[in-house]
Order: sequence, then C-alpha cells, then structure tokens
Amino acid sequence: MTAARHRPLRIIDFTGRAVRILDQRLLPGRIRVLNCRTVEDVARAIETLAVRGAPAIGVAGAYGVALALTTAAPGNVRKTRDRVRRAIDRLSRTRPTARNLFWAMEALRRRTDESEATNGADLRETILAEVRRLVDMEAEANRRIGLVGVDLVPSPARALTICNTGPLATGSYGTALGVLIEAARRGKNLHVFACETRPLFQGARLTCWELQRARIPATLLIDSAAAWLLKRERVDFVIVGADRIAANGDTANKIGTYALACSAREAGVPFYVAAPSTTFDLSLSSGENIPIEQRDPGEVENAGGRRVAPPRVRVWNPAFDVTPATHISAIVTDRGILRPPFESAIRAALTD
Amino acid sequence: MTAARHRPLRIIDFTGRAVRILDQRLLPGRIRVLNCRTVEDVARAIETLAVRGAPAIGVAGAYGVALALTTAAPGNVRKTRDRVRRAIDRLSRTRPTARNLFWAMEALRRRTDESEATNGADLRETILAEVRRLVDMEAEANRRIGLVGVDLVPSPARALTICNTGPLATGSYGTALGVLIEAARRGKNLHVFACETRPLFQGARLTCWELQRARIPATLLIDSAAAWLLKRERVDFVIVGADRIAANGDTANKIGTYALACSAREAGVPFYVAAPSTTFDLSLSSGENIPIEQRDPGEVENAGGRRVAPPRVRVWNPAFDVTPATHISAIVTDRGILRPPFESAIRAALTD
Repeated sequence: MTAARHRPLRIIDFTGRAVRILDQRLLPGRIRVLNCRTVEDVARAIETLAVRGAPAIGVAGAYGVALALTTAAPGNVRKTRDRVRRAIDRLSRTRPTARNLFWAMEALRRRTDESEATNGADLRETILAEVRRLVDMEAEANRRIGLVGVDLVPSPARALTICNTGPLATGSYGTALGVLIEAARRGKNLHVFACETRPLFQGARLTCWELQRARIPATLLIDSAAAWLLKRERVDFVIVGADRIAANGDTANKIGTYALACSAREAGVPFYVAAPSTTFDLSLSSGENIPIEQRDPGEVENAGGRRVAPPRVRVWNPAFDVTPATHISAIVTDRGILRPPFESAIRAALTD
Repeated sequence: MTAARHRPLRIIDFTGRAVRILDQRLLPGRIRVLNCRTVEDVARAIETLAVRGAPAIGVAGAYGVALALTTAAPGNVRKTRDRVRRAIDRLSRTRPTARNLFWAMEALRRRTDESEATNGADLRETILAEVRRLVDMEAEANRRIGLVGVDLVPSPARALTICNTGPLATGSYGTALGVLIEAARRGKNLHVFACETRPLFQGARLTCWELQRARIPATLLIDSAAAWLLKRERVDFVIVGADRIAANGDTANKIGTYALACSAREAGVPFYVAAPSTTFDLSLSSGENIPIEQRDPGEVENAGGRRVAPPRVRVWNPAFDVTPATHISAIVTDRGILRPPFESAIRAALTD
C-alpha cells in the first residue's frame, strides 16, 4: 500500500467539451494530455494509438459519441439521431479488431434506434446516460477481473506477459496486468517478465512503467526470447489480455501472443487470458473470421524513430494474431474463471 | 545473373598491417571500414558486433592472430610463441557462444604448441600459413553449404529466416542465406520472409539488404509475428544458421531461433539449420552446456538509438538460445545434408 500504487492517472476523461486522453505514444518519457474536441479528434487518437487497449478503445469511442452531442447546438430528434449515427460510423472505422469498441458502438446504435424520444434533448440525455452506463460497466468488469483472477496467482509467482493490459489499456483497472496488480496488492510475492512488444514497445514503455508504479519487480525481455525464458527459467504462468474472443474461446490479441502460447504449451506452462465480457464476440463461432488489422509498414521499418530497414523493403505488419482455444488454460472474466471446454463455459457465463 | 548479385563486398580483409572490417553496425545506412591495427582492435570489433556471424568471427579471430605477428618486430621463437598465445587468449575472451572462433583459436594454438620451428621467422610463417588455411577452409565449407543445401529448396518456395547468415555473417558465401542465394542464382523462384531480429535488427538491416543485393523478393516482419505467419500463410520451410551445434544436433543460434522452431513444429513446416563443420562442437554431448552470452541491457532498453524502457528496469538479454535436435528436420553442412537421428549422422559426417 504505497502512495505510488494509488496515485491516480487520468487516462481517459470526458469533460463535456472534450475527451481528454493521456497520450500513450509518448510514455514513459513524457506525460501529455490530448484535448480531443471533435469526434474526428477522438477517432484519430484511436487510430494513432494515443489511446490503445481493447477496453480503453471502447471507453474512448463511447465518449466520442457523447462528445458529438455535447459540443453541438441542440437540434431536433432527427438531427440528434443523425449526429449519433455519424459519430458511431466514424469511430467504428478506426480499428477493426478489438471487440469492445463495437460492443459500445452497437449498444449506442441500438439505444438510438430504439429510443422513443420525441425531441433532441431527450434523445441526447438517453445517449449520454447510456455512455455513462457503458463506461461504468467496462470499469466494473475490469475491477472484477482482478478480484476473480487473483485466485490463479500462487505466491511466490513468476509470470510472463506481453503488450500492456494495465490501467492504461483499460482506462480503469486493467485485465491481465490488473490481475497481477491485485495479487501484489494482496501481498503476493510476484515477479513479472514483460515482453517488450514490437513494433511499438507497449511492453517496454507502458507495462514496465505500470509495474514500477505498482512496485512489482519486473524484468524486460525481447519478444523472441520468451520461448527460451519459458524453457530455461522457472515461469509459473503466462497471462495476456484479449482484443476479441470468439464463441469457442479462440482469442485475438497483440501480435506475438500466439507465439507465446506455442512456447508456453511446449514448456508445459499454463497460459491464461484475462478479458471482460465486453471482449467476447459470440457472433463468431471461431477465431477464423476475426478481422486482423494490418498496420503501417513504417512501424516495422523504423524503431525508436530511426530507420532500421533498407529502402523499398516489403513489410508484413499484422497488429494481432489469434491464439486457438486449444492453447488456453483458462480465461479470466468478470463472470468468473472459465475453463475448457470453452464453448459451453463461455455460453453459460455470458448468457446467464 | 546481375551485376548487383556479384558486386564484391570486402567484409573482412587482412593487409598484413591491419585487419580491415566492414562495420556492420552501420549497415545498411553507411558503409565504413574499420582499420584494426592491433589484436585489441580486432577483439573490440568482435565484442561490439562490428563483425558478427559465427564463421565471420572465426575468420576475424584468425586474422587477429596473424596481425599479432605481422605488426611486431620479428623476435625469437619463444617471443613469437608468446605473442601468438597472448593474441589467442585475448580473442578467445570476446564472445563465448560461436564455435567457429574457438575452432580457429584451438587450431592455431595446437600449431604453435606442436611447431618445431627453431626461430621466430619460421614459426611466424607456420602460423600465417595456418591462418590462410583456416580462412580458406571456412570459405570453402560455406561455398559447399550453398551447393549442398540447394537440393532442399523447391521452386517456387517461400522461406522464413532469422538474423543474418549471408556473406556478411561469414566473410564469404553465407550459410542459411547462402543456400537461398545459391537457389536463386540457379533460377529458383524464391520469396524470403526475414525476421527483423531484435535487439540489433540484423534481419532488417543486413538480411533485407543482402536479399535486395541478390535480387531476391523479401518481406520483413517482427520476430513475434513469425508464428502467426507460419500458421496463416504458406511457408515451405524455415532455414537458420548456427553458432554452435552439439554432438546430438542441439543447436545454439540467435535468440528467437528456438521460438521459430516451436512454431514451425506446430505448423508442420520443416526447420533446417545450415552450418559449416567448423560450427560443430563434438566435445558437448548436448546443447545443455553450450555457454550462452548475456549481452548489455542497453541493447533492449534502447531501440534505434532511442530509449524505450523506463529508467532502472531489469533486463534479460541472452544473445542466443538452443533449439533441441528434436525440432530440426535437417542440418545442411559442407559434408552433406544430415538427417535424424543426428547423433550418428553427425559422427559419421564429421569424423570420416
């Protein structure tokens, strides 16, 4: 229980006139807040990874829709509805893989379509209330993941993770890293190995930083060393977040996750996924059809702002991969810890 | 057969007064030659990776010993012998994993110990002749790897590799990349996927550059995306070099190789190692005891010259890992293509 552990960081904030976003591209070197005053500003913040992490994108998107209403002159119900739909359309075109964004956008679209409001002000209040509800739900789901997942963490424990899944990735408590932070908060003796997470180093820049803030001892390694770590050193479990989980448990997450799952399996180390129910996509029977974002080649051609590849090189830069359910030992959700066979476990947990 | 394909690059050169080393740390952006005028200069060039790649380190080390003799005033046989031994001792302390360096140093030490020369000039000639013989052997072994390995390459073929194993890594023809360059030279239709190879980007910087020079179409990817590439796209085989191969076929190579082997195995893709017989260490029954170099944390804390990790982070930075023989489909050597069971195949090939 240290001051550092609880120093609040405002990651995403809605002021009515702006969505204020802590610019994660500059961390840990610099703390700067982006003032997004339009839907387009929010969309660009998501596209450029100023805010990233599936739950955080969902929250930013929901606030983006709210912004479309609070920054415009009140209009009639048709105009208000159009404004909401345009915001949803734009925000839905930012990044294709993380489910939480679409979960929020679909809920807001449904609320708009189904609203019986007869004037713009009423519809506006309905939508703003729905945004608040969605943001609260996401935070509460994340809080519960920590409480539920802590049971999986022995003490002492050595855990391996990739990318960033802490408060920064969620706007609130964190998913995979939330579990570890909660375990440490309860006095468990932890050591966390953090994969640096090329191409954008979210592991090195954000996870190491959040672990330091939480006073959890950590070791940084390059992504490709993880298999060797799992084989040669004692690691008790791997825990990762998720961007989208299909009905059968197949899990899209940061590129490199599937490689970790292969080597964890080979080493006989349990592989856990932690995600709120808002990350599940029951409309997809398997991971086969999860859309995988291909990002700019420049992310790979450059490192730390300097070009590493020769000119005119071709680049393959998927931002995510899909880990088959067969490689996952358990999925920690706000509805409890799910175990294989995942299809029935997921159905039971999410439809009760 | 293009001009570019055959434009000669002097990677390591011995002038009698200096060992001239193409500084690979600056490639592909800048071509600079280091003039190493002392054994210490050569040792530092190896330690700082100005020259890297197991065969190239062996060649640089051998030339370093020659330099100790050609730059000093001729002395008596005892002084000459001491000079050789001091050079061998210093050069042997540069990098612990690659076998080829020790192969060269042991041969030179043996030649020195066993020489019956009665004056310094004779011993000096003996050692210089031995250096020439070792350098020629290494080049000839590398040339043969290409000729032998080409049989493993179908056409068309899509191959995946890590780190750099071309001319730059060997001073001559290359090992794994040598096989691919030879296959392309014979008109096979190739596409090569190159892992960028954190922390020092030898794949992005050197392999992509050598592939461009050889006019072989190539695609760059981050290391952690390789497992997903192997699962989702067609890749016909993985081919990598080696820094040391134990008597049972266990293979130490650039960190990330073992991760590739795990995911190739999972995807059912053949996994080939290409290395000259000078890379084998029959004194080690398995990979268990291959010394693995741990390198400076700064390599991981920084990328492209910019710091990515927060201050005071702990780092795990092994430069190599060991791929068990069980994960290797074939080893291409100058003595032919070896297949499992490797222990008997290696013994037969190397002791005939």
